[in-house]
Amino acid sequence: MSFELTILGSSSATPTYDRFPTSQHLVMLDQHMLIDCGEGAQIQMRRYKLKRSKLRYIFISHMHGDHILGLPGLLFSMNLLQRTEPLHIFGPPELFEVLNLLIRHSDNQLRYEVIPHYTQHNKPEIILENSTLRVTSFPLYHRIPTTGFLFTETEKLRKLNSEACKQHNVPVTSYLDLKRGSDYVNSDTGIHVANELLTFDSGKKLSYAYCSDTVFDSRVAESVKDVRLMYHEATFMHDKLLRAQETMHTTAKQAAIIAKEANAEKLLIGHFSSRYDDLTELLHEAQTEFENTELALEGRRFILTD
Amino acid sequence: MSFELTILGSSSATPTYDRFPTSQHLVMLDQHMLIDCGEGAQIQMRRYKLKRSKLRYIFISHMHGDHILGLPGLLFSMNLLQRTEPLHIFGPPELFEVLNLLIRHSDNQLRYEVIPHYTQHNKPEIILENSTLRVTSFPLYHRIPTTGFLFTETEKLRKLNSEACKQHNVPVTSYLDLKRGSDYVNSDTGIHVANELLTFDSGKKLSYAYCSDTVFDSRVAESVKDVRLMYHEATFMHDKLLRAQETMHTTAKQAAIIAKEANAEKLLIGHFSSRYDDLTELLHEAQTEFENTELALEGRRFILTD
Repeated sequence: MSFELTILGSSSATPTYDRFPTSQHLVMLDQHMLIDCGEGAQIQMRRYKLKRSKLRYIFISHMHGDHILGLPGLLFSMNLLQRTEPLHIFGPPELFEVLNLLIRHSDNQLRYEVIPHYTQHNKPEIILENSTLRVTSFPLYHRIPTTGFLFTETEKLRKLNSEACKQHNVPVTSYLDLKRGSDYVNSDTGIHVANELLTFDSGKKLSYAYCSDTVFDSRVAESVKDVRLMYHEATFMHDKLLRAQETMHTTAKQAAIIAKEANAEKLLIGHFSSRYDDLTELLHEAQTEFENTELALEGRRFILTD
Repeated sequence: MSFELTILGSSSATPTYDRFPTSQHLVMLDQHMLIDCGEGAQIQMRRYKLKRSKLRYIFISHMHGDHILGLPGLLFSMNLLQRTEPLHIFGPPELFEVLNLLIRHSDNQLRYEVIPHYTQHNKPEIILENSTLRVTSFPLYHRIPTTGFLFTETEKLRKLNSEACKQHNVPVTSYLDLKRGSDYVNSDTGIHVANELLTFDSGKKLSYAYCSDTVFDSRVAESVKDVRLMYHEATFMHDKLLRAQETMHTTAKQAAIIAKEANAEKLLIGHFSSRYDDLTELLHEAQTEFENTELALEGRRFILTD
């Protein structure tokens, strides 16, 4: 699976109307990840048939309870489920203080290694990079240190034009260079074939930006410029702008403005205040600024294609 | 409401088959309480229409995650819901260390007071007593310090025989003494009327014992002798006795033996291992030892009458 995002929780701090606090499950380039882990995240994973054992990376944006309180239980469950593979957790240093205290007082020794990666909230930073995936944390602007996460394909390989390769007698050993954009040169004959004749364009890189929680700030748009899919919190309607500013949250309209400024292809909004039962008004408010918006509701799946 | 117990979670540490980790909601003599608070307890309270704002006392048996991880989120929600009344929490000292750390790192100040009451696990102790309710903690025998809780009516008042009181010209001011069992003496005339002529027996005191988690130990039965309703963990079937002993848990058969030894009226079993999908076998195993057994399943309500 190249890219599949499943929403586990869409609620802000007070869970209500069957909405769970914030958590998202992302499979990108065959890597299984959680982004934030509000209370009940593991219960939601079971509901949507997402295997806890496959998780390799967990990203935590900040220390508010509605983004972290499902994590200790998930770690304990993984232990009972006999996990042995290491688990990488990216989050603020305080997170690991809390986890260590809970593990110590429960007299549990985890059978697997938790590898902590401290995030820092002052500037963007590449926090994970492998042959297919790059994850960058970037500053958000909330009441306590908070980071967003930008997930991008490390390298977008071009697609081979098999017919043309055969025609030009390109050996298989040159295929990877071709996918990476090189021209083909036959060292014996000196014949040079331009890359465009041997490959097809494979479209835009997969990319996903996760922005929660934050007050409206255009620097967020700068950090995720040209992203394909963007999640941005939209805790309130715009008539509650003052309340949004006081609590350092964003309105649906403002989230859409950020998506427009970022030149995103598509916007998901979430982190809804418990004051809203019916969410269609939030959706419509965002769509007046940025049409390609959807609600990030529990159980919804969003797919990006190559 | 004199006594209504609602099961919020029946699962042991790994939530599964739509079962939530351990938590119970008790209304007894108009006092609203939670007993243990596993992940998702507040979500379950909403589902069963139990008001978070009414909670006055919370009792935590021990520090394992499946009994405490719903508590921080509940406290934060109460804060957002503008709670101002104090909340009494009874639990091991380590619990408050964890709560304080989480509150500090989330940069939240609770608007209401949390009044901590440290439990101790070496001997029974009255931890709460008011004019209607007495709560006693008592030792359980688990891998870390753990206590059970026994809830009893402080004083069982006799019921007035209004007809007889009128006949003997008993003034209203003597009614409370009568309910408490005194005879009536008219100080002017010296006339003495025996209590039994003026009141009716009002049956057994309400009582409920909560016993989770523990290995099989007859001292538990001693601690809750003659209780009316008893909850006892029954993590495994008896064919997994060795596993129960290793992990310091109880089998369904053993839970029933404890109920019999305690001379309980009724037994509820819970804290089921995730290995059991269908729970009827656990129920039947317990019923062969103690017939009046029920499963403590999510959403079930148990009522005691005067």
